[in-house]
Amino acid sequence: MKNKVVVELITIGDELLIGQVVNTNASWLGNELQKNGFFLKHVETIGDDESEILDAFENASKRAHIVLITGGLGPTDDDLTKAALCRYFNTKTTLNQEALEVIRTLFEKRGMELTPRNYEQAMLPELCNYIPNAVGTAPGMWFEGNDVIYVSMPGVPFEMQNMVTNEILPRLKQRFETIHYAKRTVLVTGIGESFLADKIQSWEKSLPNFLSLAYLPQYGIVRLRLSGWHADMDFLNETIEKEINTLMPHIMPYFFGTEEDKLEEIVLKLLKERKQTLATAESCTGGNIAHLITGIAGSSTVFNGSVVAYANSAKENLLGVDAKLIEKHGAVSQEVVESMARNACRVLKTDFAVATSGIAGPDGGTLEKPVGTVWIAVATPKETFSQRYNFGNTRENTIKRASITALNMLRKWLLEN
Amino acid sequence: MKNKVVVELITIGDELLIGQVVNTNASWLGNELQKNGFFLKHVETIGDDESEILDAFENASKRAHIVLITGGLGPTDDDLTKAALCRYFNTKTTLNQEALEVIRTLFEKRGMELTPRNYEQAMLPELCNYIPNAVGTAPGMWFEGNDVIYVSMPGVPFEMQNMVTNEILPRLKQRFETIHYAKRTVLVTGIGESFLADKIQSWEKSLPNFLSLAYLPQYGIVRLRLSGWHADMDFLNETIEKEINTLMPHIMPYFFGTEEDKLEEIVLKLLKERKQTLATAESCTGGNIAHLITGIAGSSTVFNGSVVAYANSAKENLLGVDAKLIEKHGAVSQEVVESMARNACRVLKTDFAVATSGIAGPDGGTLEKPVGTVWIAVATPKETFSQRYNFGNTRENTIKRASITALNMLRKWLLEN
Repeated sequence: MKNKVVVELITIGDELLIGQVVNTNASWLGNELQKNGFFLKHVETIGDDESEILDAFENASKRAHIVLITGGLGPTDDDLTKAALCRYFNTKTTLNQEALEVIRTLFEKRGMELTPRNYEQAMLPELCNYIPNAVGTAPGMWFEGNDVIYVSMPGVPFEMQNMVTNEILPRLKQRFETIHYAKRTVLVTGIGESFLADKIQSWEKSLPNFLSLAYLPQYGIVRLRLSGWHADMDFLNETIEKEINTLMPHIMPYFFGTEEDKLEEIVLKLLKERKQTLATAESCTGGNIAHLITGIAGSSTVFNGSVVAYANSAKENLLGVDAKLIEKHGAVSQEVVESMARNACRVLKTDFAVATSGIAGPDGGTLEKPVGTVWIAVATPKETFSQRYNFGNTRENTIKRASITALNMLRKWLLEN
Repeated sequence: MKNKVVVELITIGDELLIGQVVNTNASWLGNELQKNGFFLKHVETIGDDESEILDAFENASKRAHIVLITGGLGPTDDDLTKAALCRYFNTKTTLNQEALEVIRTLFEKRGMELTPRNYEQAMLPELCNYIPNAVGTAPGMWFEGNDVIYVSMPGVPFEMQNMVTNEILPRLKQRFETIHYAKRTVLVTGIGESFLADKIQSWEKSLPNFLSLAYLPQYGIVRLRLSGWHADMDFLNETIEKEINTLMPHIMPYFFGTEEDKLEEIVLKLLKERKQTLATAESCTGGNIAHLITGIAGSSTVFNGSVVAYANSAKENLLGVDAKLIEKHGAVSQEVVESMARNACRVLKTDFAVATSGIAGPDGGTLEKPVGTVWIAVATPKETFSQRYNFGNTRENTIKRASITALNMLRKWLLEN
C-alpha cells in the first residue's frame, strides 16, 4: 500500500523574517518534492534562535514523516542550527574526517588555507549521518528518531539544491513508497496570460477533476502546468498525455518547449542540428541575450560572440553601421537594427545574428518612441527581417522580454526554413 | 513602557507549497513590520485545508500578540480562510453593505456586472471589523480574541500591500507602543565569509547584547548586517553608528558599499565622477558583466559596450588579439586576457576595460587549468593588470563570481588612482 508521505520544511534565518531575503528555497523544494511524490504540507520560517528551532523540531515531528531543515549552518556565530540539533538529539559533535577532506579539497582548489572555523564546519553531531556538500563547506546532516527523518541542509540555494538532487532525494526515494504525482509543463511565448486563458477555456473546463492547470507567467513566457495525483500511475500518465495532445492544436503558434526547456537552449539545439552559428548585436538588451546563451553548457559550438553596442560609436566602429543611417533614422529604428544584425554576421563570421535597439528607460523616451520601444532584427543566410515592439515601462522587463522575443523570432524562422 | 510586539504570519495557499508561487508576501511584510517596530517572529505556510488553518490559528495565538493571515479569500471554491475564521471565532457571515459598495464600484469602473460570487465576497463574519480593500474584491477582516489580534488579508501581493500600508499598520500603531528597531548593512567583496568572520571576531564579540550581526553571502559578495531593538531610538541609532565606525578599519580593503548598493552601480558612479568610460571584453562571463552594468539606468553615459568574444576567431577579428598569442598560451591565459582588455579600450574607444577568459564548465577543464579557472584583466589609462582565480565547479557560480570579481578589481584601482 502506497502512502502520501508528509514533509515539513523548517527554514531558519533572521534574514528571512526581516525581508532581506526572499524564501526561494521553500518554493524550489516544494516543486522538487512534489515531482518526486512527496507532499510538502507545512513550511515554517523562524529566526536564528535556539528555543524557536527546538520548538519547531518538536511541532514538526508530530505532523510529518520527514522534516527538512535549511539554513543556520554557516561558519559564523549567528548560525545555531547545529547546536540545536545536538541538543534536540542529545548528542555532541566530533570531527568528521570525510567532511574535513571535502572542505580541504575545496579550499586547496581555490588556493586558500583552512582556518579553525572551517574545521568547526567539519565537526558533526555523533548521532547523524554525514551528507556530502559537493559545492560548499557546510555538510548536510541526517538524523532519525521517533519514526521521523530529519535532514539539515545549508541555506545557500545552489548548495541546498545540489545536495537535495544528488544526495537527499535518492535516499528518501529508497526509504518511502509514495503515491503518484505527475505533471507536464508546456511552454509558450508571444501571447499574454489572459489571452491564452480565453483561447483554452473550453479545454480547461473539460479537464477531469484529479487534474489541475496552472499558469506561470514570467517575462514573456507562460508555463502551463497540468498536474495531478492518482493511485494508478499508468492511468494518470495516460490521462495527462491525452489532455496535452488535445491542448496542443490550440497553442501551436506559441508553443516552443516542454518542462524546463529554455528558449535559448531550443535555439542552440536547432542551430547545432543545422551546424550553423549565431552572433548577437545588442544595444538595449546590453548583453543579456549573450548572457542567456552562454549560460548553456556547450553553447560555444554554436555561439561565436556578441557585440554589445551601447554607444552609437560602437555600432559604427565595431559593427560598421553607417553613421548616416543612425543620424537619419535614429539608433532605435528598423534600418539601424537590421544593419546591426547583418553586420554582426559579418564581423563575427556567423550564419545568423539577432540584434536589438530600444529604449529601456527610465529616460530617453519620446512621444514617437516611448520608453519600452524596441526594434528587433534577425539576420539569416536568406534574408533579414525585423519587428517593432513595446515592452512597457520598467527597465528589467524591457530587457528580459526583448531578449526572449529576439530568440523566439529566430526560433520561428529556423522552424519554417 | 514599550514592548517588543510579536507578530506571526500565516500564509495560506496550495500554490505556495508546490513551488508554483514564491512567497514574496512574507518578505515584503517582514520588511514593513520591522521598519515599523513590530517583530515578525514566525511565518507559517499551509495549504487550503480547514483543519490545518485552524491548527495554525491556535498555535499562533500562543506565540504572538498579532496574527496576520494572507490568502485563501478568493471567490473560488478552493479558498477556505473565511470559513475557518467563522469556525474559529464561532460566528457566521452576513452581508456587509460597505464591502458590497466597494466591490460594485470596482466592477462598474471595469464595465462589468456583479456575479453571485462577488456578493459572496461581501459576506463577512459578524464578529469581525471590516477592513476596506481599495484595489480588489476581497475585503480584510479584523478579529480580536484572548488578547490576540487576527487580521485576514488577500493573498494578491499588491492588494495585501495596499491594505497593510493604508489600513492595517496605522491601526496597529495606534494600538501598540513598539520598541525601536534599526539596522545598518555594509557590503564587502573579495573575502570569504569565514575569513571575514575571523578578521572581525573581536569586534563582533564586543558588541552590546541588544545588537546582532548577520553574514549574508551571495556570489562573491558578503552583506554584513548589524541590527538591534531598543526602547531608546536615539541611543540605538548612535550605538549602531559607533559600532559601524569601529568595524570599518577592519574591513576597509573589502568594503564597497552600504544597504542595497550594487557593485556595478558603485563602479559606474566612480567612472562618472571622473568622466571616464568603460568597455568589457568577455569570454567566460559571456556578456554577464555588460548585462549587470546595463541593468543600471543611466549606464550609457559611461558604458560604451562590450565584445563578447566567445570564439577565438572573435577574439582575433573583433578585438585584434594576436592569433599566435592564443596558440602559444591558450585562450585562458594572462597574455590573452590582458590583450583582450587593452584591445577592448581601443576598439570601443574607452578609458577602461575589464576582460575575462576562463573555463565555466562543465567541459573544457584540464589538470593545469581545471573547470572554474578564470583569468581577469583590467586595462586602465596607466597600466594593464590581471589575476588568475578559481571559482569552483558550477557554471553559474563561476560566471557570477568572475563578474563580481572583475568589477571589484576595477573599483579598487579607481579608488587608489
